Amino acid sequence: MADSSFALPGSAAEVEEGLVLSPKFGPDGLLTCVATDVVSGDVLMVAHMNAEALRRTIETGQAWYYSRSRKALWRKGESSGHVQSVAEMRVDCDQDAIWIKVRQDGPGACHTGRRSCFYRSVSMGQGGGPITLAFVDADRGFDPAQVYGDKPQT
Amino acid sequence: MADSSFALPGSAAEVEEGLVLSPKFGPDGLLTCVATDVVSGDVLMVAHMNAEALRRTIETGQAWYYSRSRKALWRKGESSGHVQSVAEMRVDCDQDAIWIKVRQDGPGACHTGRRSCFYRSVSMGQGGGPITLAFVDADRGFDPAQVYGDKPQT
Repeated sequence: MADSSFALPGSAAEVEEGLVLSPKFGPDGLLTCVATDVVSGDVLMVAHMNAEALRRTIETGQAWYYSRSRKALWRKGESSGHVQSVAEMRVDCDQDAIWIKVRQDGPGACHTGRRSCFYRSVSMGQGGGPITLAFVDADRGFDPAQVYGDKPQT
Repeated sequence: MADSSFALPGSAAEVEEGLVLSPKFGPDGLLTCVATDVVSGDVLMVAHMNAEALRRTIETGQAWYYSRSRKALWRKGESSGHVQSVAEMRVDCDQDAIWIKVRQDGPGACHTGRRSCFYRSVSMGQGGGPITLAFVDADRGFDPAQVYGDKPQT
């Protein structure tokens, strides 16, 4: 989907060493976006942005994403109030991934009620059968049923 | 692609609250993986893992990925020597993204010679024209031509 907000990717050298944002959206029109907590450095969530979500994020300084399951643009926190203010945005070498450091409003980024979506760890050295997980930093900061009710979990 | 190493995803409650890894690979057979530096907390790179890359990473404690452009499994550092040892692995709520905290061997993770692939920032508040970037933490720790020569940039 063309979006005149952004330059089209040029040569590899321009994409990697240039100073113009020319995002390389995938066949589905999306980029991967990693949001980390600007205070703790923890990864809060991994989500996707289409051109419109990226444009609105840059214009407003608040995180917008594109939901693949709901096929809809969403502003983080529009249901929950748990808005993400972007302290810094980075783009990677081949311009197909975005990293935002955010100030996370409210108790958490995850729709399950946790601070981060990454509340389970996988021990190295496992193999030959089911791989088990362990909860880490998995305390809930909010009750999803109370925050979302019947609203989209955004 | 079936891979008997992993349980198949069950109900949403099992995926989100269970203690068995049941990764949700995309239609392309891939998960998104974010690698952060276990010392600095910085995001080093965003890449992809297929079932085999995930299995090998968990078994060996070294980061393996799947290259979409080369359509090949690769061990990070197999060309460059810049291996990633996994200090911790996390999986997200819906089990379609992996976060690894790594000890990055050598001067950098990025094929351009930088420590991180995210060496350019995007200022918030831009709009209405080309979006400009600024170099941040963009000093090269190695010369890609010397490290890779004609080898794959891994």
